[in-house]
Order: sequence, then C-alpha cells, then structure tokens
Amino acid sequence: MNAATPPLVGILMGSDSDFDVMREAGRVLKAFDIAFEMLVTSAHRTPERTHQYAIRARERGLQVLIVGAGAAAHLAGVVAAVTPLPVIGVPLSATGLQGMDALLATVQMPGGIPVATMAIGKAGATNAALYAIRILALTRPDLADRLNAYHLDMARSVEKKNQLLQERLADL
Amino acid sequence: MNAATPPLVGILMGSDSDFDVMREAGRVLKAFDIAFEMLVTSAHRTPERTHQYAIRARERGLQVLIVGAGAAAHLAGVVAAVTPLPVIGVPLSATGLQGMDALLATVQMPGGIPVATMAIGKAGATNAALYAIRILALTRPDLADRLNAYHLDMARSVEKKNQLLQERLADL
Amino acid sequence: MNAATPPLVGILMGSDSDFDVMREAGRVLKAFDIAFEMLVTSAHRTPERTHQYAIRARERGLQVLIVGAGAAAHLAGVVAAVTPLPVIGVPLSATGLQGMDALLATVQMPGGIPVATMAIGKAGATNAALYAIRILALTRPDLADRLNAYHLDMARSVEKKNQLLQERLADL
Amino acid sequence: MNAATPPLVGILMGSDSDFDVMREAGRVLKAFDIAFEMLVTSAHRTPERTHQYAIRARERGLQVLIVGAGAAAHLAGVVAAVTPLPVIGVPLSATGLQGMDALLATVQMPGGIPVATMAIGKAGATNAALYAIRILALTRPDLADRLNAYHLDMARSVEKKNQLLQERLADL
Amino acid sequence: MNAATPPLVGILMGSDSDFDVMREAGRVLKAFDIAFEMLVTSAHRTPERTHQYAIRARERGLQVLIVGAGAAAHLAGVVAAVTPLPVIGVPLSATGLQGMDALLATVQMPGGIPVATMAIGKAGATNAALYAIRILALTRPDLADRLNAYHLDMARSVEKKNQLLQERLADL
Amino acid sequence: MNAATPPLVGILMGSDSDFDVMREAGRVLKAFDIAFEMLVTSAHRTPERTHQYAIRARERGLQVLIVGAGAAAHLAGVVAAVTPLPVIGVPLSATGLQGMDALLATVQMPGGIPVATMAIGKAGATNAALYAIRILALTRPDLADRLNAYHLDMARSVEKKNQLLQERLADL
Amino acid sequence: MNAATPPLVGILMGSDSDFDVMREAGRVLKAFDIAFEMLVTSAHRTPERTHQYAIRARERGLQVLIVGAGAAAHLAGVVAAVTPLPVIGVPLSATGLQGMDALLATVQMPGGIPVATMAIGKAGATNAALYAIRILALTRPDLADRLNAYHLDMARSVEKKNQLLQERLADL
Amino acid sequence: MNAATPPLVGILMGSDSDFDVMREAGRVLKAFDIAFEMLVTSAHRTPERTHQYAIRARERGLQVLIVGAGAAAHLAGVVAAVTPLPVIGVPLSATGLQGMDALLATVQMPGGIPVATMAIGKAGATNAALYAIRILALTRPDLADRLNAYHLDMARSVEKKNQLLQERLADL
Repeated sequence: MNAATPPLVGILMGSDSDFDVMREAGRVLKAFDIAFEMLVTSAHRTPERTHQYAIRARERGLQVLIVGAGAAAHLAGVVAAVTPLPVIGVPLSATGLQGMDALLATVQMPGGIPVATMAIGKAGATNAALYAIRILALTRPDLADRLNAYHLDMARSVEKKNQLLQERLADL
Repeated sequence: MNAATPPLVGILMGSDSDFDVMREAGRVLKAFDIAFEMLVTSAHRTPERTHQYAIRARERGLQVLIVGAGAAAHLAGVVAAVTPLPVIGVPLSATGLQGMDALLATVQMPGGIPVATMAIGKAGATNAALYAIRILALTRPDLADRLNAYHLDMARSVEKKNQLLQERLADL
Repeated sequence: MNAATPPLVGILMGSDSDFDVMREAGRVLKAFDIAFEMLVTSAHRTPERTHQYAIRARERGLQVLIVGAGAAAHLAGVVAAVTPLPVIGVPLSATGLQGMDALLATVQMPGGIPVATMAIGKAGATNAALYAIRILALTRPDLADRLNAYHLDMARSVEKKNQLLQERLADL
Repeated sequence: MNAATPPLVGILMGSDSDFDVMREAGRVLKAFDIAFEMLVTSAHRTPERTHQYAIRARERGLQVLIVGAGAAAHLAGVVAAVTPLPVIGVPLSATGLQGMDALLATVQMPGGIPVATMAIGKAGATNAALYAIRILALTRPDLADRLNAYHLDMARSVEKKNQLLQERLADL
Repeated sequence: MNAATPPLVGILMGSDSDFDVMREAGRVLKAFDIAFEMLVTSAHRTPERTHQYAIRARERGLQVLIVGAGAAAHLAGVVAAVTPLPVIGVPLSATGLQGMDALLATVQMPGGIPVATMAIGKAGATNAALYAIRILALTRPDLADRLNAYHLDMARSVEKKNQLLQERLADL
Repeated sequence: MNAATPPLVGILMGSDSDFDVMREAGRVLKAFDIAFEMLVTSAHRTPERTHQYAIRARERGLQVLIVGAGAAAHLAGVVAAVTPLPVIGVPLSATGLQGMDALLATVQMPGGIPVATMAIGKAGATNAALYAIRILALTRPDLADRLNAYHLDMARSVEKKNQLLQERLADL
Repeated sequence: MNAATPPLVGILMGSDSDFDVMREAGRVLKAFDIAFEMLVTSAHRTPERTHQYAIRARERGLQVLIVGAGAAAHLAGVVAAVTPLPVIGVPLSATGLQGMDALLATVQMPGGIPVATMAIGKAGATNAALYAIRILALTRPDLADRLNAYHLDMARSVEKKNQLLQERLADL
Repeated sequence: MNAATPPLVGILMGSDSDFDVMREAGRVLKAFDIAFEMLVTSAHRTPERTHQYAIRARERGLQVLIVGAGAAAHLAGVVAAVTPLPVIGVPLSATGLQGMDALLATVQMPGGIPVATMAIGKAGATNAALYAIRILALTRPDLADRLNAYHLDMARSVEKKNQLLQERLADL
C-alpha cells in the first residue's frame, strides 16, 4: 500500500532510536489502511532537510504530521512553524528525566503555533495515529465507521480481560 | 454569526471561572469567522449533561471540540471517550500547582483515546483555536489562506516589535 | 465467601495490568472476611459500563468503592461523580512519570466531588482496603476489634524485625 | 447545635493560620447540620495533646477525623496511627512549594496506616467534609438524600453559570 | 564495644528494609569507635514504642539520634518533637518517587522543631554519622583529630583515583 | 552581648538580600542569650574570604555555623568542606523555582561532607538556630532547660490559639 | 558605540516582552564597551528570519550569540543548529511553570548541538553577557583585566554590604 | 599528543565514577586533535587542590574548563569563581533524582559567576567538548572547518539512519 498510494500522514522522528516507540503510530495507521511515510530527520542535525520537508508537506498531499522527539524536543515546534497542517507531537523518554523534558518542550508552545501533544512514549505514539484518523475521518465516513469499530473492539477487549480477572480472583 | 450558522467548533469549560482564559479560543475563531458555541459543563458536577453533549456533538455537525479544565482535569478525556471527533485539551492553572496537575491529567491519556493537549493557560486556548482551524483548513482552502495571512501578520508583528526594540536600545 | 455473600466493597481497575498491584487490596479484604468484587472497567474504553456500574453500586448494596488507575487517572473521579458512596482512589505507576501523573489526576479533584486518595502503588492498594475497613468498622464492632488486632500484629512484626536487626548488627 | 449535640466529626489543624482554609470544611458540615468540633493541635508542638485527642476520639463518639496540615505535614499520619477511625488529610499550601510538600507528606503513607488525602487547599477542605458526609450517609438515609440534593444543586449551578456565559459571549 | 559502652548515638529506621542503607551510618560510627545502637521502630506502626524511646533517649545518655525513613517520612519529625537532642533525618528512597517524598516530608519541618536533613539514601546515611561525629567532636578533641584524618584520607583517595584515571586516559 | 562575649555561632549568608530571612536565626539565638556573629560572604563572589572564615572558625571558638544561601546554593557545602564544625544549611527562595534549587543544592551533598539542611526560608532559619541550641545544650544544662521552656511555650501558644479558634467558630 | 563598531555579540529574544530581562545582558556588555546588537526574532513566528540571521552571523563578524526564550524555548537550539558560533541560552520565566519549561527546553540538547545554558531570568541574562566576555577575553587581555576588576568590585560590594549588615544587627 | 602538546582544555570531574560519562568529552576533543588533560578533583573532598588548579589554569595556558559533577554539584561553580576562563558544567546523574539535583545546582548560578550548563549525562559531556571547540574555533579557522565537517557528518549519519529505517518499515 505505502508504495502505490500517496501518503496522507508523515511520521517524523528525531533519531532512529525513536523507532521502537514511533512504529506504534505506523502500526495503527496500517491497521486502518491509511498510507503514511516515516522518516528520521532532526531539528538540530538536519535542520535544512527538516525545513524542506515541512514546507513541502502540504503540497505533497500530506494531511497530518506526527512528530516524535525526546530531550529538548524541538522537532514538532520547528515543523509546525512552517506548515499549516495539523502537527501532532509525541514526547519521548530519551533522558533520565523520563520524558518530562520532552513533554514540556513540546507542549508549552507559545501562542500562534500549535502542536497537539500526546502522552509520553508508546501510548502517545498510538494515540497520535488515532488522532490523525479522527481528523481524516471528518471527511471520510469509512474511517469514522472503522474508528467506531475500533472503540467497540477496545470495549470488548476490556470485558474479556475482566472475565479473565474473575478467574484469577479464586487464587488471590 | 453564531446564531445563524450552525457551529463547527464546541468550546467546553469545566467552570465559569475558566472563561477569562478560554475566551481567547473564542476570539481567534471569531476572527476567522468560524461559527462556534461555548458552554460550561463539568465532568464531575454535570456528568450526564457532559456525556449527552459529547455523544451528540458529531451528529449536530460539530467538527472539533476544545475543552479547557483545571486541577484533576478529566473533562477532555471524558469527552474524547464518547465522541469520534478530534478533541483538543487546554490545561488550566486552577490550583497552586500552576496547571501542572491539569497538564498531566490531560496529556497522559492511555492508548486508545487521544486528547490533543495544548500549553497551559491563555497560550493554550489561543493555540487550541488555531489548531481547530488547521484541521478545518484541510478541506477549506479559504481557511488555509487566512491561516497563511495570520502567519504573515505574526511575522510582521515580530518585526515591528523588533523595530520598537531598536529605539529602546538607546536608553539601555 | 465471595460467591454467597453480596459484596460490600467494589474494587475497580482501569486495565488488567493493574491487577498485580490492586490484588493487595483484595488480599486485605479477604483476610478481614469482607465480601468484595473486582472488575476491570475503563473510564475511557468502556465509559458506559463504568457509568452503569457506578450508578447502580449503592442500590446493589456496595458500601465502598476502591478504584485503581494509572496515567491520566480519571476512573476514580468519574465514578465518584455519579455515586454517593465513598470512593477511594489508588494512583498507579503506569508510565515513566512513576505515578506522579496518576497521583495528581486522582487527588486534585475540584470542590464538590471528593476522592480519597491513597499512596501510589502497592502501599496505596493495601491502605485502600484498610481504609474501607475503617469505614465499615464504624458500624461493625467486630471489624473494629479485628483492626485493633491487625495493628497489634503490625507492632509485633516491627518488634520481631527489630530483634532480627540486632543479630545482623554483629556483622556490620 | 455544636454545643448541644456531641460532635461526629473532628476537624484538626496544625496551626491557627490554617483556619481560613479549614473552615470550608466546617461550613459544609454546618450546612448539612452535622455536629463537629474544630481544634488547633500540632504533631510537633503539642504531640501529647494530639496523641491524647486521637486516642480518645472514638470513645468520645467521633466518627471521622479531618486533618489539615502544611509543610512536612505529619499531623494526619500521626493521628491515623493511633485511632481506628477513618482519617481524612487535607494538604495545605504553607510554604513556597505550594503544598506539594504537604501533599507528599500526607498521601505517601506506608502500608498499614491509611490517610484519605484530598486536594491541596480549599477544594480539599470542602471535599474532606463532603467525604465525611458520604461515610456518615452509609447509615443515615437522610444524609444520602441531602447529598443527592447537594449534587442536584451543583448541577443546577453549573447550568446557571452556563446561561450567564451565553450572555457574555455577545461581547467576546 | 557496643555491648560494654553505653551508646552515644541511636540509629532508628522505620522498616527493616531500610537496613541496607542505614548500616552505612553504623559502619562510619564503628570506624570512629563510637558506641551506638540501632533499632527498627515506626512512627505509624509502633507509635508508642517510638514515643517512649524518643522521650527517654536523653536520660539514657544518648547524644544524637539518626533517623532514616522513606515515603511520607514522619519518623524523624515525630522523634524530634519529644526530645531536646539533635535529630538527623535521612530520607530514603522507598517508593517510585525516588525519595523526593521522603526528602520533603523530612526537611520541610515547621518552625520550632528542627530536623537536620541529609541527602537521600546511602550518601545521607554516611553523612548522618559524620555529622553526629562533628557534634560529638565539639567536646572530644580525639574525635576532631580523627575527623581530620578522615578528611585527609578522603583527599588522598581522590588523588589516588586521579592517578588511576591518568592511566585509563591512554585507551580513551 | 555580641561585643563582649566571643561568638559561639556564626551565621553566614550569600547576599544581603538574605538578611530578612536569616535574621530569624539571629533572633532565636538572641532570645537564648547565645553570642553569635553574622556576615555576608559569598561562595562565588568572595571565595577567598569565605574560605578563610571557614578555616579559622573553629580556632576562633565558634561551635556551629549556620549558612543561608539561595539559587545554586554552594555556600554551606563549601564551608563544610574546610571546617570540622557542624554546619547547618538554610536553603533560601531566591529565584522563581521557590527554593527547590537551593534545597537540592544544599541537601544532596555527596558522602563525606555533611550539611544539616533545614526547611526553605524563615522556618528553616528559625530551626537552624534551634538546632544549634540543641547541639550546644548537649554540654550546657541551662540551655537544655531553656529549650524545654521554649517547647512548653510553643505548646501553650498552640493552646491559646486553639481557644481563640473556638470563639471564631461561632461566626463560621 | 553601537553604531560605529561592528557588533561582536548578538542578543536575540523570542518576544519583546523578554526585553526587561534580556537588557541585563546588554547593560553588562555596554559596561565592558563591547559592541552588540539586539533583536526580536522568533523560532516559530519568524522562522525564516531567525534562520537567515543565524546562518549569516559568523560571516557578519559576530563572535557569540546570546538567546533568551521562554515556554517551549526552541530559539537557542534552532540558532545553534545552523551556526558554528558559541550560543548562550537564557531560559525565561514566561508561563506559570516559572521557567522550568524553558530551562529543560534549552539545556537538554541532544548530543551534537551544544547550547550553553544560564540560570533562569535576570541572573541568567547577566551571566550570559559575562560568559560572552570570558570567551572574548581569551584573545583580548584588556577584557581579562576588566573581568578581573569586575570580580574585585563584586568582592568589594559584598564586603560593603557586610558592613551595612553589621549596623543592622544592633536592632535585630 | 597529550604528552607533547600543552593542554588547551581541562576536564574535571568530582569522582572517578564520573569517568564513564566524562570520557565522551575526551573522545570528542581527541577526534578534533585538541590537547586536553583530565583529572579527578572534588569541591568538597579536595577543596585546596581544586582551588589551586582553578587559580592556575589560565596561566598554564588552558582556555576552557569542562567540569562534570553530580548530586549537589558545586564543582563547576567553585571553579568558575576563581578563574576568568569560560567554564562548562556537565550535570551528572549520581543519585535517584536522575541528575535534576545536579542540573539545578549547576545552572542556577547567581549573577556574577557564569557556568555554561550542558544537558545531564553523556549528551552533555559530548556537547561540552563541542562547545569548547566552538570557542576555540573563534580564532582557529581549521577548527571551524572541522566543526563544519562534523555537522555534515551528523547530517549524513541521520540520512543513513533514515535509509535503514525505510527498510525496516516493510516489517512493521
């Protein structure tokens, strides 16, 4: 799919060590059959490339950008500054501060340039993709239906886990 | 405008004391001529009303929900759990912890239910509206143009402030 | 016992991965022969089920609800909003922030809807059960006696550990 | 009322400077016609007095103890260690750390001695009283009815504030 | 020595799991030939015993009390409230909050009852003993000499480590 | 008194703006008729002077050093490194971080060089003096008696405040 | 001076509201007769301008860049990414988080792109200028002499403040 | 090289356990063929030696000092107080507080004595060396060229990692 269809979502990460977390976003998009591209690009080590990518993202047909970064996480803000597309930031835990540095560096954007910040780490990467789908679903009823099914699946999964829990209660 | 046009954006806040901050979101939407509605509803004091509002938001034609809340800010998460619309959370500083409690209670959503979190306070309220506009602009080129103009205005304003700064340098 | 006797305490948790911590609450209640039920239900993934459970808890004869949740822990607050029963919240460490996110999201409830918050993790789960027993003991002298015995046991255990410590002092 | 009826709730505070916050608890109890007593007693400056009060609280007919303290807030824990009554802790903001010190010193109780911790400051004091009422309501249906009415009042108040908000929207 | 000589320093800890850290204090005192005693006693689980120990410490000839405790660490404050002896608190890392809870609960004592707080964990236990020795050395010149020797040893050890470092520089 | 009697306690502060807080220490010492001296000296701006003062403190007859400093508070540690006297550190709130920076910079001393850390700000300054008195009282029974009287005074003051509270309860 | 001499130091700030703090840097440079320029430019609102300025800074003869920014402070990192000049970051307190957000967003730079971070606020702005002077002094002995004089002045000022303190001691 | 060439950069660390982190600084300097020396010296355990080293650093021809320290990290500040050379501080994670203590103790220097603070840990050590090189490059065009090459290498490395990522995308 990724090859043939032009990507609707771009997933950026500041370092290849972020892949283990950020692929959660890719997996969710894949499960919803949404074409995406993923790339390593850094706000600090490859500023030009990042700038070029962000500036051309809209004209290339991308609709949402998901950006994962750790430490003094500037990548999402830098991208959001030069594209009118909605940017979703995923703060990553890349230092001893457990992602608190990345969270503040991502979410505390000054008025004018918004970055939609998700939770630190894997939950955030998963939710970034789901949020991109919520945005795309505004104009694609099929995605809205799939989201609905996804929610029902989650609910069912919770109920199944609850049943398993009841069995474990015996040997408390 | 608000009366005639069906609202595209719903702005929710947990308490009327949040109005001073959340109206920044309203002002931005108004400046972009986007119809919106604003209401006080609480995750804890009016759970039913909140639930009903969130469940019916999509069928009423709303496209984005902006939710401001302070302290143990549950409102955005509670809303996001029952609507497929993109929800934007604005953590408010309502306690001595300066909004850090609201930030963590809003952004650290578990995988499955995303809330797009903005900065604490007024910058966050402003950016929530701008983010809603970025989303709406995906299918409305006129908004994309206006966003572009808004960015140019910001740049010009920075440059004007820079000129004023130069004059103040004399009496350093 | 659990099968025959109607439960007095309901233990809720947002995810089955919380069981390892929350079973401490179950163990304490079991040791005090207090009938309880335990279930997995989520504020976000199964909001309806959670709502229904909370609304009906009192008429089903439950007296205290113990609620464990991590991250942006909304479960206890959401439950407390729709039941008049005393709700005890146990913040769990489910993210890199070590439970600080869950603590603030549980304890910083706005005026009107109280959640009695315990320590993060296992100590909190143990204490949640002991607190439920303190509440139940107000009208059941047998439980007050047992609590008394429990306190004596703790004191004796500390003294025993102190004796063992004295032996270890030799090889300091 | 306080003179004639033996108090059901004891409200303790470590310093008279805590009164401005802790009286919120008294006001709520008064509104529910629940007899209470209030006293200044310190874990560190009057340890004997605190100890004697806590040890005799149950036999004097008290059912719930509400304890407000700031800084290294030890009062609630010290009291909970020698009474089997449910103890509710209200962390107060008494230092530059905005109550975060009092929160951790109150909530992070080790397994064995629970303290039900509320939010920092006035919201916590209000909720402490409401929580005491939830406990008392378990055996007093009249209080359960009043709690119900209180919740309806809160909901109505939110709706009224919402209406006022609608009027302010005009001059956004 | 400990058997024959009456102890000058009492080392208290809230739980036997604190021994691994607190024995550092014992080791230092032993190296300085200062008689000490060590005991497990809890502010919450054995409040009476703690109280009795603290009240009688001075008349038993103790000069300094070292108190290690984790979580909502009340032990040092509770002891300091009823003895005129200098009390040294060692905050321990006993929860996911890495000792920050114990630090604030130990150091933020209100005016009137001082607790001399050391660093979290082993460095703190070591320093607590060294601080006790500084106090004792005020009236015992032999201890002042030994402290002096200890400082020279530390300096020499740093220099030796520096020499080893020079050798490792080759294979940088 | 200060002129005639050689000082037993030295109170150091890093800046004259610390005087408002640190004089609390002076007031307590004065009330106990303990000769002290007070000086402004900085770890960074007057390192030589600080060094000389610390090195000669013991031979000049000083027994305890109280050191107040804010921000990256190095003064207490720098002093403690070159004197065998017990050093008491008072972290001051001198930046927007409310004294948390000074607390960590004072208390987290590495093993070998202890600084007895008190609470941030005025409570800490008061307690530093009281702690110095506890140390001096080890060899001066008169001070022990005065400390005892001080504690009784505190207790009486709490009780008096409690009585005043009872009167205020009427107009709750 | 500023007009005639080409500037050696560039002082950047993200907003004109940062001027009150950042002018401290200008004042120090002026006192050392070092030509500088000051401008408002934003990482997010004027990314192009910022980029162009940073890229051309070295060829324009600038030697050091001082960058003040608050909130999710990206400006220093963005500048450091495209210039080989030493960049000094001053985190500013622009939100309720007291500059902690700006501190982490400035200092936690990933390996490869260093930003020399100073204290939050005015102390940081002053020190940024002094640090620039330390760098320039490496090749300009006159500046080294002036720095030396500045240090002597600071020491003298501390001693003068100390003398004033002695006079205030009388009315303690 | 180190033997023959007089060192331009001095790398100090408070403990030999800091070597694993601080050698990153050495490796970068070595790669740039910059002569450096490395030594273990402590602000608290060897204050004299530290003082002597810092005072003589400039006359020995050193141009930049890099100082790594953990916990209550005073070393960089103590050194900066007595040398006019630019000092770069690297906060190390040496306690359970993950380097947050060292960060605040290093960066929050009072006005007058600047310490250029880098990120906590290895990224900080790497960047400290790169920052020293940026300073040296001001007067050595060869270093500026090498820095340029280093930046190109980083960019190329990011691009290579990006290509590897593309291959991994297949098995998402």
